Amino acid sequence: MNLQDIHSPADVKKLDMAQLTDLAAQMRKALIEKLSVTGGHVGPNLGVVEATLAMHYVFDMPKDKIVYDVSHQSYVHKMLTGRALAFTDPAHYDDVTGYTNPTESPDYDIFSLGHTSSSVALAAGLAKQRDLKGISGKEENIVCFIGDGSITGGVALEGIDNVATLGSNYILVFNDNQMSIAENHGGVYRDFDALRETNGTDPCNFFKAMGIEDYRYVPYGNDVEPLVKVFEEVKGIDHPVVVHIDTQKGEGYKPAEADREDFHYSGPFDIATGEPAHISKSENYADIFASHMLSKIKAGEDVTVITAGTPGVLGFGPQERAEAGRHFLDAGIAEQCAVGMAAGIARAGGRPVFGVMSTFLQRAYDQLEQDVAVNRLPVVLNIFGGGLSAMVDETHLGWFDIAMVANLPGWVYLAPTCKEEYLAMLDWAIAQTDYPVAIRVPSRGVVTTGRTYPTDYSDLDAYMVERRGDKVAVIAAGDMLPLGAKTCDKLEEKGIKPTLINPRFLSGLDEQLLLELTKDHQLVITIEDGSLAGGWGESVARFYGPMDMKVKCYGIDKQLRNRFDPAEVARALHLTPDQIAADAQSLLNW
Amino acid sequence: MNLQDIHSPADVKKLDMAQLTDLAAQMRKALIEKLSVTGGHVGPNLGVVEATLAMHYVFDMPKDKIVYDVSHQSYVHKMLTGRALAFTDPAHYDDVTGYTNPTESPDYDIFSLGHTSSSVALAAGLAKQRDLKGISGKEENIVCFIGDGSITGGVALEGIDNVATLGSNYILVFNDNQMSIAENHGGVYRDFDALRETNGTDPCNFFKAMGIEDYRYVPYGNDVEPLVKVFEEVKGIDHPVVVHIDTQKGEGYKPAEADREDFHYSGPFDIATGEPAHISKSENYADIFASHMLSKIKAGEDVTVITAGTPGVLGFGPQERAEAGRHFLDAGIAEQCAVGMAAGIARAGGRPVFGVMSTFLQRAYDQLEQDVAVNRLPVVLNIFGGGLSAMVDETHLGWFDIAMVANLPGWVYLAPTCKEEYLAMLDWAIAQTDYPVAIRVPSRGVVTTGRTYPTDYSDLDAYMVERRGDKVAVIAAGDMLPLGAKTCDKLEEKGIKPTLINPRFLSGLDEQLLLELTKDHQLVITIEDGSLAGGWGESVARFYGPMDMKVKCYGIDKQLRNRFDPAEVARALHLTPDQIAADAQSLLNW
Repeated sequence: MNLQDIHSPADVKKLDMAQLTDLAAQMRKALIEKLSVTGGHVGPNLGVVEATLAMHYVFDMPKDKIVYDVSHQSYVHKMLTGRALAFTDPAHYDDVTGYTNPTESPDYDIFSLGHTSSSVALAAGLAKQRDLKGISGKEENIVCFIGDGSITGGVALEGIDNVATLGSNYILVFNDNQMSIAENHGGVYRDFDALRETNGTDPCNFFKAMGIEDYRYVPYGNDVEPLVKVFEEVKGIDHPVVVHIDTQKGEGYKPAEADREDFHYSGPFDIATGEPAHISKSENYADIFASHMLSKIKAGEDVTVITAGTPGVLGFGPQERAEAGRHFLDAGIAEQCAVGMAAGIARAGGRPVFGVMSTFLQRAYDQLEQDVAVNRLPVVLNIFGGGLSAMVDETHLGWFDIAMVANLPGWVYLAPTCKEEYLAMLDWAIAQTDYPVAIRVPSRGVVTTGRTYPTDYSDLDAYMVERRGDKVAVIAAGDMLPLGAKTCDKLEEKGIKPTLINPRFLSGLDEQLLLELTKDHQLVITIEDGSLAGGWGESVARFYGPMDMKVKCYGIDKQLRNRFDPAEVARALHLTPDQIAADAQSLLNW
Repeated sequence: MNLQDIHSPADVKKLDMAQLTDLAAQMRKALIEKLSVTGGHVGPNLGVVEATLAMHYVFDMPKDKIVYDVSHQSYVHKMLTGRALAFTDPAHYDDVTGYTNPTESPDYDIFSLGHTSSSVALAAGLAKQRDLKGISGKEENIVCFIGDGSITGGVALEGIDNVATLGSNYILVFNDNQMSIAENHGGVYRDFDALRETNGTDPCNFFKAMGIEDYRYVPYGNDVEPLVKVFEEVKGIDHPVVVHIDTQKGEGYKPAEADREDFHYSGPFDIATGEPAHISKSENYADIFASHMLSKIKAGEDVTVITAGTPGVLGFGPQERAEAGRHFLDAGIAEQCAVGMAAGIARAGGRPVFGVMSTFLQRAYDQLEQDVAVNRLPVVLNIFGGGLSAMVDETHLGWFDIAMVANLPGWVYLAPTCKEEYLAMLDWAIAQTDYPVAIRVPSRGVVTTGRTYPTDYSDLDAYMVERRGDKVAVIAAGDMLPLGAKTCDKLEEKGIKPTLINPRFLSGLDEQLLLELTKDHQLVITIEDGSLAGGWGESVARFYGPMDMKVKCYGIDKQLRNRFDPAEVARALHLTPDQIAADAQSLLNW
């Protein structure tokens, strides 16, 4: 059977073991070939080829439901559920996203998922409702497939605790590849080690301790046959069961087996060598952050760099982590814990610097308010990947961090416009101990101005005037400043001499400056690279609300988008110099 | 030694076992007497009298650090750290808050804490920084005191996983009182049962499974002597250790031992009988919600009422839970899991209705966006305790839910103004399946208008005009509508005939109506009972930004407040009819 001829799981069910093994080899080859061209989650998907095949061989989707955690391990699932062409035909490589999505496959993709650890609770909800409808597990199996570091996320642990009390069919497949994105962190992994070493017989068993008594171990998670056997055993079961499978991340592709961190997510690569197809020579903020923090650590500064399972986001690869030593802390995929520990470190007088993707920070909202703001602790955040263009999957939008952080009392949220200003702000944030400070690391490439920026930002909410004109003031935050500058250039071409302002602070208003503008300005334009709803621009609009000043806010409108073209969306949102300048002219009746 | 003569832990250390036991009795008596007058967390504090005494007897605060989870169990700690008078002298009962707070006691209160489950990570941060400073556990013990249902919160579980890898002194005291606020939920409690039953020897041990190998069990957690012994054993230890103590919630006060749920937090009560001192006869929204939902359940509707460990907030006491049966789900203190399960239930075609306090919803922000909004699932939220006056501790402010929910794409956030409208909105929210819908349950007492409200809210963002006038429009959301109406009355007295609008939707603008107002209005006033920063009023200000309309937003300013007088703060924020009317006159130059 050729992979191309698999149109649904029904086609898989016709195969014998030898044919399944052959199909696995075909899928692995297709994965490597496609991902060498498009990039993607190479290692995670190579590791679950057999497990996915076995699940579809045994379970009956769409009657049965399989929920993939993070769903970055769903490529094989897609191949088996009518989407093989997207992996075999380069002309169709772009037909599918990297995550499950009911829009893409209403029958086979249960949720749109991209953040880790949520699958356990989502699947528990499916089971709960199945039970309420009086449908038995014999008729509908609920399968949750989780691993690859996700299991230590708080919501997964909460979910397991709840699943244990379901009292009905729930099959938790724990894909133990001994890795997260980087190496795993956390005590529970020692238990998983012990379980592997004892072939699942260690009496101290995390899952049993969490109340799931039925536990099965499969030592060879990259062989189809034992997987089929265990899934057949648990199919239709009337209580929660854990199937712990030992898989190898990157299985079957030597470079991915050897470098499991780099191949967790890889750009295009050369199949023969595993080397990246394009080595970017351009600077990036991850490396700038890492080298700056390492220089502080080497200089003996009392800083602790923190990640929640994504050290690469901060430029901390194995080498940098080794150099940082005790000054680097990976809390695993556990953003809440990362912020909580940062608060504790700050309370004890240390200088914690947590680097995190905008979209993942969402999980720590309560900690930002409770642990940090209420306790007035000088935690430093570096928020990466904020803005329209940083990530384009609907599950990874970096649009909400301004609304989240800037509206919380106590937080200072800084928006640097270039490398020099970023480092000046970072130095200040770490040196001071009066405020929690978040820095929105620019996400639109590194801009170097060569200018010298102030080293002191303790005069909170003091905006910086870049050009002083009249009639219209453009206040453009962070790496929207170049767009603001170009807009001003356009206006100047039209005979208007506008004011251009770098607000620097997203968490407050320079009321004195804003008031001063009322003297000779009729219009204030705000530009931010984030959600307009709840954003910084709205606070400017509220300030001017009772006055005669007109205000026009630019940013991202309130809708979710998936796999969009940022340039196209920017045009739709009038985030171009020509459009903003034209709007301004129109508002000024110029 | 009299309790009054305990000025610091040093005074405790001088006592012998008999004296400690006597002091425990005095403290218990003081607790019962004070709390019978003031109300408070009766059961939790009665349960930890001996444990707190033993900790202060053995450990040396402030050199050693004790972090109390939720910190609602810190009353005894306060008595022993210079604040006994606040428990023995009725004139001083109000001198202390119900939570630890460094402002109140810089030496002895490490954090301001009020949400559950955060202590483990906070204390881990203290330990991490101690280690970085090269201070050994012999010189500084870090003690985390957690229990009373908190341990199943995701951030606590993340924290335990991280603590296991600290490699240094960390003493996790697990106060196992076999209760949360209501009964405990979740599989891990079975493991705790097994550990108690085996005197701590069961080889399947949750803490060991999480990687903390050193575990001690104390069967009599309400006896000082064995507690002192175990704390002396672990003091100065060089690795993480769990001390699992079995305590009785409400110990020593029969009514609290008998009714552990009602005495988790109690208002003033009669000491002799345990009966509430005041039985409120007035209606409340918890009971309204519960009886409405029960009537749906009894009518066979496919609803599932969900709580995250606080069933009382929804009016679901033991009786209501029994009546609801399988239609009631308590996920334990695990808001993330509760929302995740709600999303799963909705995906499977059920109608989940999650009731939650505004302040605790913060923990599920990521789920609101990812599990619900991204998946367009018709989850129904009932958000209780939002607004200025609902809770007045800085750790429990209900000010951020509008900014949190209303700015997320896809969510419909409704603000009913009275009981009739609330029930109409609730019915619609449950009946429809197009949107995730949150309802902001009024928090300023039950208002009954006797009016009939629309049953269909599918015409999203359609505001309701209550009075049509000109010049000034007052748009007052939710239970601020009466304030809006009174403001309009004041304006009418001054010869202005204003427009009054019930916006009903916090998540969107009635652009047509707002545009129409520009014809004969010069000023729009928004009033909301939540944070101005990121709030709904700002979206109105942004809408009118490019127009000539003046906008003035009323709500809560951006600062944290602790134990404030809501009426006083309302005046400071101009949230009174006279002040708003005067402001309006001034803005209109009337």
